[in-house]
Amino acid sequence: MTTKDFAPTCPIPIAQYPQVLLAHGGGGRLMHSLIDKLYAPTFDHLEAQHDGAVLPLGDARMAFTTDSYVVRPLFFPGGDIGQMAVHGTVNDLAMCGARPLYISTSLILEEGLPMETLWQVVQSMQSAAAAAGVHIVTGDTKVVDKGKGDGVFINTAGIGIIEHDLNIGPRSIRAGDAIILSGDIGRHGIAIMASREGLSFESDIESDLAPVADLVMNLLDAGIEVHCLRDLTRGGLATALVEIAQSSNLQLQIEEAAIQVREDVRGACEILGFDPMYVANEGRFVAIIAADDVQRALDLFHQHPLGCDATLLGRVTDQRTGRVTMTSLIGANRIVDMLSGEQLPRIC
Amino acid sequence: MTTKDFAPTCPIPIAQYPQVLLAHGGGGRLMHSLIDKLYAPTFDHLEAQHDGAVLPLGDARMAFTTDSYVVRPLFFPGGDIGQMAVHGTVNDLAMCGARPLYISTSLILEEGLPMETLWQVVQSMQSAAAAAGVHIVTGDTKVVDKGKGDGVFINTAGIGIIEHDLNIGPRSIRAGDAIILSGDIGRHGIAIMASREGLSFESDIESDLAPVADLVMNLLDAGIEVHCLRDLTRGGLATALVEIAQSSNLQLQIEEAAIQVREDVRGACEILGFDPMYVANEGRFVAIIAADDVQRALDLFHQHPLGCDATLLGRVTDQRTGRVTMTSLIGANRIVDMLSGEQLPRIC
Repeated sequence: MTTKDFAPTCPIPIAQYPQVLLAHGGGGRLMHSLIDKLYAPTFDHLEAQHDGAVLPLGDARMAFTTDSYVVRPLFFPGGDIGQMAVHGTVNDLAMCGARPLYISTSLILEEGLPMETLWQVVQSMQSAAAAAGVHIVTGDTKVVDKGKGDGVFINTAGIGIIEHDLNIGPRSIRAGDAIILSGDIGRHGIAIMASREGLSFESDIESDLAPVADLVMNLLDAGIEVHCLRDLTRGGLATALVEIAQSSNLQLQIEEAAIQVREDVRGACEILGFDPMYVANEGRFVAIIAADDVQRALDLFHQHPLGCDATLLGRVTDQRTGRVTMTSLIGANRIVDMLSGEQLPRIC
Repeated sequence: MTTKDFAPTCPIPIAQYPQVLLAHGGGGRLMHSLIDKLYAPTFDHLEAQHDGAVLPLGDARMAFTTDSYVVRPLFFPGGDIGQMAVHGTVNDLAMCGARPLYISTSLILEEGLPMETLWQVVQSMQSAAAAAGVHIVTGDTKVVDKGKGDGVFINTAGIGIIEHDLNIGPRSIRAGDAIILSGDIGRHGIAIMASREGLSFESDIESDLAPVADLVMNLLDAGIEVHCLRDLTRGGLATALVEIAQSSNLQLQIEEAAIQVREDVRGACEILGFDPMYVANEGRFVAIIAADDVQRALDLFHQHPLGCDATLLGRVTDQRTGRVTMTSLIGANRIVDMLSGEQLPRIC
């Protein structure tokens, strides 16, 4: 090891966390501590609390985002790692309010991966890109020794163009804004879990994996005053809302009655001990918009196949608590918190 | 596994290559067969034979590139995986003739990675970004189970802006063009190999890892008519030249006497059975430029610390063979070919 001028102390308490845990990638508290304490202060231009960065290029504004996909198994009910790697990045661009244009892909293959599997994944990526209207323009392949990877890991980065003047992000939300939830929650996480553990439920539960950029562009093209968008991936609906509340320092008030969970998903969650509020989705998002635009926005959601069950989830209040509160079905009010540990590793 | 409409036959002959081999990531023939047969025909907008894609965004032209880094060991003489992940992507942007602006980073961590190691890698990335004048703007972290990764894999994607009207790439080279080699070759691969195998040579051999964008910008800002740029990473000088020759279908004629290999690197290559022409570099490149600009270009190289030993390596001829030929020190002429297998896995 070469000697370097490393800062003497790691900002994560080493005595408490000498090693990286699975939960550091789980979307909950530990992952946020890595982002807040280790990445954000070090990478001085990191847009840490958003799905991507919004940047100038020439006279244009663009969004730039990246994600690596390590989901297990590679093929699951409703999708596969290739589709996910494209749709996930398309969705992150959409959450910046950008029209997705270009995708890069980098594959880390484990020696011994069946060539047929690679071929299926590559085809799946292309068909997903075609469905989402983006182009896979550049790529890279690395192969690691057998036992040093796990079949296929895929990184995609994406570039989109921003064609409006809005600043979409948690800091743009205002007291009185409406929170719209695009549809039912919990299917992706349960589909992965069932597939991984060989569980079978009364009905087949498929992932909700889908590219939502088209729906988001409908909102923006119609001039809806969109303040914040967030997809409900790792950590689920609860974590997404808590992140927005913390970043904005405003209180979000939501209604449990507006959260739809399919009966079979709810049953599977009960069996597995999961709270659907924390289960990952891959085709669902929340939109926080100016109150005056609620009805027009809901109409646009309802006209789109990926938003036909959208509901008015709640409101942004004027309380500066950075918290999320939820009125339950029986009228009680409780605080919704971020997950401490990890519910389910390698969900995406 | 869900059923899908996969094409019935894989374009790679499964009987011959039922599984992915380490050499499929090695930069030689097998990797090129993946690119040519599997990726390029499937991803319909892939710029397969270039270090990145050149794309319009608004009124601007930009370059977009990605690479994953799986180098072993993580820290080696002259650098580490964090520096490499930044400089490698900066260099790929420079090879497109773009001024590097933004970098994304995605870390795939193995459960159990010492937190101190992650901290060192993150700091190293930031100091490399600062040195290269780029900003790390967005990121992602995944954690995989112990034994399903190897410490840290890093993906970086990069965006740069193109501020000139040149089309830099293999198809732009012309008969008569000059080929300039930016400096001595072979240090990175030998430094990694020595470090990995615990070999020690008479002198310490350090990687040549460095960001070359500044030197490339000097050439472009001075109005040098640059036709093609290529860094000499996986597969080394020989592979880079063969790729350019094949893409352009022109013959490149080079002089062995213009290739500098340090004595200690040459000695190590002899011991290890490597040909320095195929050993990876991380701070060296070739520039193919209009013949009239040779002297001015060489002067600019020689004024820069990363180009002070640059040489005129050879010429593009008017023969349409797609081959590279080399005049040896004793005057013999031979064909330079791509590597068949793999010289050294996980070099980058």
